[in-house]
Amino acid sequence: MADRKNRYIHHAIIIGGGFAGLYAAKVLGNSPVKVTLIDKRNFHLFQPLLYQVATGGLSPGDVASPIRAVLSRYKNIWVMTAEVIDIDPNGQRVILRDGELTYDTLIVATGASHHYFGHDDWAQEAPGLKTVEDALEIRRRIFLAFEAAERETAPDMRRAWMRFVIVGGGPTGVELAGALGELACTTLKNDFRNINTSESEITLIEGLDRILPTYPPQLSAKAQEDLSQLNVNVRTQTMVTDIRNGVVTTQGDNRIEQIKAQTILWAAGVKASSLGQVLAKETGAKLDRAGRVIVQPDFTLPNYPNIFVVGDLASYSHGDGKPLPGVASVAMQEGPYVANVIKERLKGKTPPQFHYNNKGSLAVIGRNKAVADLGRLRFDGFIAWLIWVFVHIRYLVEFDNKVLVLFQWAWNYFTRKRSALLITGNDPFPTLKVHKEVGKAITMPQGKST
Amino acid sequence: MADRKNRYIHHAIIIGGGFAGLYAAKVLGNSPVKVTLIDKRNFHLFQPLLYQVATGGLSPGDVASPIRAVLSRYKNIWVMTAEVIDIDPNGQRVILRDGELTYDTLIVATGASHHYFGHDDWAQEAPGLKTVEDALEIRRRIFLAFEAAERETAPDMRRAWMRFVIVGGGPTGVELAGALGELACTTLKNDFRNINTSESEITLIEGLDRILPTYPPQLSAKAQEDLSQLNVNVRTQTMVTDIRNGVVTTQGDNRIEQIKAQTILWAAGVKASSLGQVLAKETGAKLDRAGRVIVQPDFTLPNYPNIFVVGDLASYSHGDGKPLPGVASVAMQEGPYVANVIKERLKGKTPPQFHYNNKGSLAVIGRNKAVADLGRLRFDGFIAWLIWVFVHIRYLVEFDNKVLVLFQWAWNYFTRKRSALLITGNDPFPTLKVHKEVGKAITMPQGKST
Repeated sequence: MADRKNRYIHHAIIIGGGFAGLYAAKVLGNSPVKVTLIDKRNFHLFQPLLYQVATGGLSPGDVASPIRAVLSRYKNIWVMTAEVIDIDPNGQRVILRDGELTYDTLIVATGASHHYFGHDDWAQEAPGLKTVEDALEIRRRIFLAFEAAERETAPDMRRAWMRFVIVGGGPTGVELAGALGELACTTLKNDFRNINTSESEITLIEGLDRILPTYPPQLSAKAQEDLSQLNVNVRTQTMVTDIRNGVVTTQGDNRIEQIKAQTILWAAGVKASSLGQVLAKETGAKLDRAGRVIVQPDFTLPNYPNIFVVGDLASYSHGDGKPLPGVASVAMQEGPYVANVIKERLKGKTPPQFHYNNKGSLAVIGRNKAVADLGRLRFDGFIAWLIWVFVHIRYLVEFDNKVLVLFQWAWNYFTRKRSALLITGNDPFPTLKVHKEVGKAITMPQGKST
Repeated sequence: MADRKNRYIHHAIIIGGGFAGLYAAKVLGNSPVKVTLIDKRNFHLFQPLLYQVATGGLSPGDVASPIRAVLSRYKNIWVMTAEVIDIDPNGQRVILRDGELTYDTLIVATGASHHYFGHDDWAQEAPGLKTVEDALEIRRRIFLAFEAAERETAPDMRRAWMRFVIVGGGPTGVELAGALGELACTTLKNDFRNINTSESEITLIEGLDRILPTYPPQLSAKAQEDLSQLNVNVRTQTMVTDIRNGVVTTQGDNRIEQIKAQTILWAAGVKASSLGQVLAKETGAKLDRAGRVIVQPDFTLPNYPNIFVVGDLASYSHGDGKPLPGVASVAMQEGPYVANVIKERLKGKTPPQFHYNNKGSLAVIGRNKAVADLGRLRFDGFIAWLIWVFVHIRYLVEFDNKVLVLFQWAWNYFTRKRSALLITGNDPFPTLKVHKEVGKAITMPQGKST
């Protein structure tokens, strides 16, 4: 192995195999740079489809690609399954839980996880959706809730099992709520004998004045309309002030309400990975409010031209002033850009400026229901849904030949079935904590229900 | 609901949603019998393909069908996700962990799990393959072992990570060994930089004088030949006497050997579900050596004509003297038979005798490699493999329209890829216990390796 390493003129370490890290690696593939890509997991996760795993439409294997297989044709890339615990920018070292490596150039792309705004105790009550394990836990809770409702004989307790609250009206919350609404209204409709799943109460809570706040207002309105057709009750300008014992306390319009629900899902806050703090401490780089590392126009850190930060961990605001959003299409542009910067530098050339190409935003609500903001063009309904399907299929196919996902979608579309409803886990049967008081009726101010 | 129940003349409870229980339910579908099917899990598992989940070829969702969805069109069938802890045959009651039900007729079909012949402490070291969770745990161990080998620098330690032992040369052991051999020789060949996965040492241990002992000898020989092409070393007439700290101790030919391996898989023993013991205690029914309930020619228990036992839990030896084997095709015949007995009885007719139709046996070793024993016809190689594919596809499609599995296979066949290699779990990264001494070289008697 030693001989082989010596053939390379430069060693680049990439931390993180998400969209930014993996796309950077691909651009460096078969170059004279030795690349080591480090990730805790052995797979890349296609996060935009994770909500489908959580709601039983897809299996984890459908949205995950083994990093080694994706990169196997690039003989200059070493993939390492390991956990990075520290970075030493002056010694040019990456410290692993069980070892260390030195680099010439470092790309940090470890993304973000969910964030409970200082209320970490809410995590147990209201799981978020960032990992495959999160998705399976949410799936477990959703389907166990329907099982429990089917067996429950006390009417108010049964209603509590059929009540779902989703906190956060961004794309993830909207997509989760839509998929849950479709489950309840369509997929599971004939599967139960004692309950009518379409009587489920699904509430989506958003602090701002509309859901999908980064979209044009008319698309937000359309999304809310689509959701209400799927029995999803949207509450905007409503803040969650507490989650405890299966009760969500909200405040909006100077009124405090309590919703008792056995299933509460979190889609509200995002926080940058902790390597951001490590970089801030070690290099003096600044972080923004969400903990993201504020980068220079070429994604390097001040005084450290050989450290790049890209993807959801980076705060890049050299365009129109607003930082670029933490979405896949941004990461897919930043990763390749910095890989090219490295290649140009090694050739002694001056790298070009980064130019962000806004490809628009897409959110799907259900079958034939979606919203698409493509800049000048805006779509909703079936057209938006078709665009969404083709965009996602294109990435999946280009990436790992996930043709299967296409078939699965086509199948689910025509049969209105879902194929991955299984409840799994080490203790898959009723490990759901039952909140004793949850059987009591909701206390809700008069005239408040919308 | 009470009104609806009163429409039914009879209440049959089925415990277990495996092949026997589910096929019984289907035959009772839309009959005047009210049916309650109880299972701990919310899905039926297509167990013959579970080894493909363990080796990364399929996702859990591909081999699991939600029981409710399969039975949703039969309005007389109630599905209940619950755990049965006791049976009261005189009171005609089934006791759940959290409730109880009364029945007119009971069908017990709770199957079997693995069995360590009194050495339950081996379970941690050598997981068996019966549940989805088992399969994901085995998958995790296999792929983490390759990851660890890639990072290991000490040659003997690296070799230990690349050493796999499978205990038990029946169909499950043979299929696991073959799939593992193919992973190492083909699928993963280009994915690693520091190791050559085709140098993995895979050993299959069988106590009898040949693998697949229930097959004709020439097919056993053919299977062993196929396995050796995939680098699997088969040792017959070899008993495992201990598994401890990552060392398998075997005894064969009056010689004791020790194999140090980080990954040990158990495919040796099967034991009937514990409801067999409950039935023996409560009804006086006899159990066979494997804990299976010895049933009468119509699958009822002596003195209890309204209790049927079918599937892997039943010991049925009213044919040529040998009990019917615990395989899917037997369960798929027993379940519908007893369902018909119930229907005939309710019509006042005498049910026909059970006639077992031996559909033969099939085991797959790898791509284009399988053995098929169809009675007078015996096949191996590509023809047997094609038969295997079509038989499995036929069941899957008939059952739950799992057309996807067909596509996935076709895809894997042409690309030689696998799509579900992801390592998952609550603590997915290196929770594998490292056996400290495992780095030492294998101690093996001279001239013993075959």
